[in-house]
Amino acid sequence: MSDDTPRRPSGSGADLAGGRCPAPIVPPAAPPRDDALESLPVWGFRDTAFSVLPNRSVVLSGNRYPLCGAEMPDIMPWMEEKLGVRLDPQDVHPSCYPPALPAARTNADFLAEVAKFLGEGARTDDPEVRLRHGHGHTQEEMYAIKYGRLPRIPDLVVYPSREEDVEALVEAALRHGVCLVPYGGGTNVTDALRCPAREERMIVSVDLGRLNRILWIDPANRMACIQAGAVGRDIAAGLARYGFTMGHEPDSIEFSTLGGWIATHASGMKKNRYGNIEDLVLDVHVVTARGVLARSGVAPRESVGLDARRWIFGSEGNLGIVTRAVVKLFPLPEVQRYDAILFPDFEKGVAFLFDVSNEGPIPASIRLMDNLQFQLGQTLKPRSRGVAAWKSRLERLYVTRLRGFEVDRMAACTLVYEGTREEVARQKRTASRLAARHGGLRAGASNGERGYQLTFGIAYIRDFVMKHWILGESFETSVPWSQAIPLCENVKRRVREEHARRGLPGAPFITCRVTQLYPTGVCIYFYFAFYYQGVERPSEVYAELERAARDEILRSGGSLSHHHGVGKLREEFLPRIASAGALAWSGALKEAVDPLNVFGIGNQRTGAAKS
Amino acid sequence: MSDDTPRRPSGSGADLAGGRCPAPIVPPAAPPRDDALESLPVWGFRDTAFSVLPNRSVVLSGNRYPLCGAEMPDIMPWMEEKLGVRLDPQDVHPSCYPPALPAARTNADFLAEVAKFLGEGARTDDPEVRLRHGHGHTQEEMYAIKYGRLPRIPDLVVYPSREEDVEALVEAALRHGVCLVPYGGGTNVTDALRCPAREERMIVSVDLGRLNRILWIDPANRMACIQAGAVGRDIAAGLARYGFTMGHEPDSIEFSTLGGWIATHASGMKKNRYGNIEDLVLDVHVVTARGVLARSGVAPRESVGLDARRWIFGSEGNLGIVTRAVVKLFPLPEVQRYDAILFPDFEKGVAFLFDVSNEGPIPASIRLMDNLQFQLGQTLKPRSRGVAAWKSRLERLYVTRLRGFEVDRMAACTLVYEGTREEVARQKRTASRLAARHGGLRAGASNGERGYQLTFGIAYIRDFVMKHWILGESFETSVPWSQAIPLCENVKRRVREEHARRGLPGAPFITCRVTQLYPTGVCIYFYFAFYYQGVERPSEVYAELERAARDEILRSGGSLSHHHGVGKLREEFLPRIASAGALAWSGALKEAVDPLNVFGIGNQRTGAAKS
Repeated sequence: MSDDTPRRPSGSGADLAGGRCPAPIVPPAAPPRDDALESLPVWGFRDTAFSVLPNRSVVLSGNRYPLCGAEMPDIMPWMEEKLGVRLDPQDVHPSCYPPALPAARTNADFLAEVAKFLGEGARTDDPEVRLRHGHGHTQEEMYAIKYGRLPRIPDLVVYPSREEDVEALVEAALRHGVCLVPYGGGTNVTDALRCPAREERMIVSVDLGRLNRILWIDPANRMACIQAGAVGRDIAAGLARYGFTMGHEPDSIEFSTLGGWIATHASGMKKNRYGNIEDLVLDVHVVTARGVLARSGVAPRESVGLDARRWIFGSEGNLGIVTRAVVKLFPLPEVQRYDAILFPDFEKGVAFLFDVSNEGPIPASIRLMDNLQFQLGQTLKPRSRGVAAWKSRLERLYVTRLRGFEVDRMAACTLVYEGTREEVARQKRTASRLAARHGGLRAGASNGERGYQLTFGIAYIRDFVMKHWILGESFETSVPWSQAIPLCENVKRRVREEHARRGLPGAPFITCRVTQLYPTGVCIYFYFAFYYQGVERPSEVYAELERAARDEILRSGGSLSHHHGVGKLREEFLPRIASAGALAWSGALKEAVDPLNVFGIGNQRTGAAKS
Repeated sequence: MSDDTPRRPSGSGADLAGGRCPAPIVPPAAPPRDDALESLPVWGFRDTAFSVLPNRSVVLSGNRYPLCGAEMPDIMPWMEEKLGVRLDPQDVHPSCYPPALPAARTNADFLAEVAKFLGEGARTDDPEVRLRHGHGHTQEEMYAIKYGRLPRIPDLVVYPSREEDVEALVEAALRHGVCLVPYGGGTNVTDALRCPAREERMIVSVDLGRLNRILWIDPANRMACIQAGAVGRDIAAGLARYGFTMGHEPDSIEFSTLGGWIATHASGMKKNRYGNIEDLVLDVHVVTARGVLARSGVAPRESVGLDARRWIFGSEGNLGIVTRAVVKLFPLPEVQRYDAILFPDFEKGVAFLFDVSNEGPIPASIRLMDNLQFQLGQTLKPRSRGVAAWKSRLERLYVTRLRGFEVDRMAACTLVYEGTREEVARQKRTASRLAARHGGLRAGASNGERGYQLTFGIAYIRDFVMKHWILGESFETSVPWSQAIPLCENVKRRVREEHARRGLPGAPFITCRVTQLYPTGVCIYFYFAFYYQGVERPSEVYAELERAARDEILRSGGSLSHHHGVGKLREEFLPRIASAGALAWSGALKEAVDPLNVFGIGNQRTGAAKS
C-alpha cells in the first residue's frame, strides 16, 4: 500500500452515529476499454509472447510480468524430458490465422432499426473482430482459428455505451428475429461463445466494453455499482484509488469482466478472504427478453421470495445481458505478504491444507502445486545451467537441510496473506505451525510472490507451445477433502492410460494444483498437454482425452466444474450430474423467459429446440 | 462443552493423507417428532405459558427457560406505563378457540390412490390438526383462530415417512387435481400457510414431521444429510452427539425445520460465524410437479450453469417439497461465552456495531437493543419492587459509575463469542476495545446470557398479552449502515403518528434491535404492540399499522424482509421493490415448473391465475 492510502475509507462508527458518513463518490468516467492492447489469435496482451532463441533459451517479451525479458534456458530441455520427445525450435506448425470466415448474414430490418440508436462507430462487421467475438480460449477454439475454421461466428459486433441501447437492441432482436450474444472479455474456456453451427438467424455479438464505468462508490456502506463490461484490472485500479478492493482475482483478471464473472459463476484466487462472485455481488441489473431485472434498493441480505436476480449466476449468456452490478467492497489490506512452503510430497501438502482449513485462519490465497508443477516453476527461471544444474542445486539445498525431500517428489505451496498487521501475523503463525507438523520447509516470500504471479505468465504458454506441436489446456474440479488425493491420482493415471492406448508420441504432461479451500473440500486445477507432431486430428484427440479426464473426475467424486462453467464443452455431462427433473427445470425457465431464444448461444443445451 | 466432546471430530490432515479419514456415520433413527408437546392455539410448548397472579405478578410456567417459575412483579406496571392504559388482570378477552371450521372437501379418487401407500396413521382430517396446518404465527392468524375464523384450511393432513411417498403424493395430486401444501414447523410469520380462500380443489397439507432423520454425518468432509422435517432443536442435539453443529439458530429453532429454513430463506442469530441458510446448504432434494431436483454429488462449490436447486431458496411452498438437504457442519466451539455491554444511547451502540463490523473479528452473535427493549428485559426479572425500584437501582449503579448514562436513553448489547479459546479471547478483546471507544460499559456474562436466551421466552408473550387486550407482533428489515439509525427513527415516528391519527387508546409500544451485522448493513427487528380494548376490528387495524410501518421501512431504504420472507403478508409490496420484469420471471418460472399449480398455496402472488 502506498502511504497516501486512506486508512479507513468507510468512515467510523462515530461518524455514522453523528450522521457524518462519507457520501457516495462518483468517480470520473473511465476511457472505453482499449481492445487494441489485446492479441486476437492468442491469449493476452499484444506486447507479450514467448519465443525461443537460437540457443534454445525461451524468453517472454514485454515488461508486464516478472518473467519478462530474462533468458530461460531450462524450460526446453525439461519439456523434452517430460514429454519424451525432441523439440526442434525451427520446426514450427505454421499458423493459418485468420482462417476462412463464413460470410456475414444480415437482417436488414434489424440493421435499419439499430442504426437509429447506435452510431457507426458502435458497430462493426470487420471479419477478425467478428471472429474474435465467436470464441473463447479453449484448446479446440484456439487450434481452430489457427489450423482449422469456425463454421459460424457473429455477423455483427455492436458496442452499446448506454443501458437503454442494450434494451433497444433486445427489443429490436425480438421484433426482427435476431440472435444476441453478450460478450465480456472473451476469456471463457468452455466454448461458451461458440456460435451454434445451425443458427440461421443473424447473430449479433453485444460487446459490453463501453459499459465499463464504476458508477458510484459508497464508502460508508462498502458497496460500488459497476458496469458489467469493466475488466478486472480496471475495476481493481479504479477502486484502489479510493482505498478499496473487490477482492475478486480470477486468473483471467486482466481481461475478464464483471458481467462475465456473474454469467460464469466465477471464483477468485483470494476467495478464502473475499468470497466467490456469488458472495460479492449484492445486486444485478439484467436486460432480458421479458423485461429488465432490477430492484429498488440494495439490502445487505434479504428474504424476498423467488429472486430472479440470483438465477443469472451461471447463465452463460443464455438468459439475458447483465449491464451492471452492485458489489461489496473491502478496504485495501493494510498488509500483503507472500510466502512459500515446500513439502516432501503432495500428500503432506494436502494434509497441511486440510489442517489450515480446519484450524484457520486461512490466508487470502493458498495453493499447492504437485511435483511436476513445482518443477515447471523452477525451469521458468533465468540463470541456470540446464536441468541437471537446477536439480542438483535443489538437492544440495534441501536434501542436506531436511531429510526426506526428494526433488522428484516434493510439492510447493504459495501463500498470500492479507489483512491488518495482526491478521497477517496470525495467518503466518498458523501456516508456520501447521507446516512444521507436516514436514514443511519455508521457502521465502520471493518464491511465494513468483509462484503466485506465475499464473499470469503461464497463461501465455499454451499458445506458444501450440506452434511447437504441443497441445495443452487446463481443466478444474471441486471435490470433498477425502476424495482429493485419490481424484488427482485417478485423473493422472487415466490420462496416461488413454494417451498410451492411442499410441500418441512421447508421454503426456499432466499436473495439478489445489487452488481453493472450503470447509468441505477443495478446488483442483489440472494442466494437461501432449506432443502432436504426426497425430491426426490432434485437437479432436485432445478433446477425447479431456473428456476421459472429466469422466474420471466424475467417477472420483469431483464436480463438473468449480469455476470454469459448462458452456458447450461440458454440457454432455449434465445428465450425469443432474436429475432429469433438474434439467427440465433449467429448460423450462429458459423457455419461459426467452421463448423466442433471442439469447440463442445455446450453452448447457438450452434453447436447442429453437436453434 | 462437556469433557467427552471429541476435540477434532473431522480427523487430521495426517489421517487424510494416510487414507485414514473417519468414515461417514449413520446415526440411529430419531423417533418421529412428538407434536403433542406443542400447543395448538398459541406459540410453543404446551407446558409453557405466561399468566398473571392475583398480586399482578407475571409467571412463566414450566421449566424450559431461565424465566420460568419466578414471579415477575415489574412487567405489568411497566407495560401500563408504556401503553398509557390501566391493565386489569381479571379483564380478559375470552378465546373462542377452536373457531368454526369449514367442512373438509374430499377428492375420492385422490384419497383412494393415497390409501394405497399411506396407512391410516399417516393421514388425518382431525379439525384442530387441519386448522393448525392452515396457519403460521402472524398476529392476524393467531387473532383469527381465537376471535374470528379462517375461511379455508387444509382438508387433510398427511405424514409421509418415505421420500417415495412424497413423490407418489405429488403424482396423485397431479392426476386428480389436488392442491398440496408443504408443512414444516408451522412457525412462519408471513401468512405463508394461509390457504387461498377461493381454492376449490381439495387441499392436502404434507407434514414433513416423519421425515426428520439425520441420514448421515461425514466427519472428514464436514457435511451431514438431514431430512427436511427435522426441527432445529433435534438437529442441534443430533449433531452435537458427534461433536458438530450446523450453527443455524433462528429465533424459532425449537420448532422450525430444515425444509422451512430453505423455503423461507432463513437467517440464524449466529450467522456472523456460521452464515445464513444459503451459506450452509450444499445440496437439496426437492420433489416437484416436474420431477425430482437432485444431484449426483455434493461438491464444496461449483459452476455448473443454471442450478435449479438454488431457486428453491425463498420458494415458500410454491414450487415443491424439499425432502432433504446436505448441510455444512462445524465442530462444536471449544469455548462459548456470553457478554453484555451497555451504551449511553442507541446511536453509540450502532457506532460500536459499525466499528466491530469493520474492524472485527465479529462475535458469533451481537445484538443491540434500544432503550425500550432494554427496559423490557429489566422488567422480565424477579425480585424487584416495582418500576421505580429497578429504575433507581439502575440509576444508582450506572449514573454514579459512568457519566452520561440515563435510564431512559441507554441501550444494551448482548454478545455470544464462539470458537477456539484464542478466537474467543480475540473477539472479546476487540469488543472491549471498541466498546470503550463509544462509552460502553461491560455488564457481565450473566446479563448477556439472559439477554440472548430471553428471545425464546419473549416468543410466548404475544399470545399471553393478546388475551389482555394487547395486540403485538414483530417485523424486520435489512438496511445499509448509513440508513440504519434514520430508519429506526422514521418507523417509530410513523407508527406513533398512525396510532394517534386513528385515536387508538393509550400509546403504541414500538421498539427495535439490531440483530445481525453485514459488511454493508444490518438487520433490524421491531416489536410493535397496542392496546385494543374498545377498538373495532383490532386485527385489521394492526395490519394497517404494520403496513404503514413497512411503507416507512421501504421509504427509508430498508428491504421488504431480511429473513421472515414474503408469503402473503407482504406480497402487495413486491411491485415496489422488484421491476415488472423480475416479477414476470418469477411468475414464468412458477407457470413453467408447476403448470397445474399443484403447489397452490399462492405465496408471492404466484399461481394466482389458477386458484
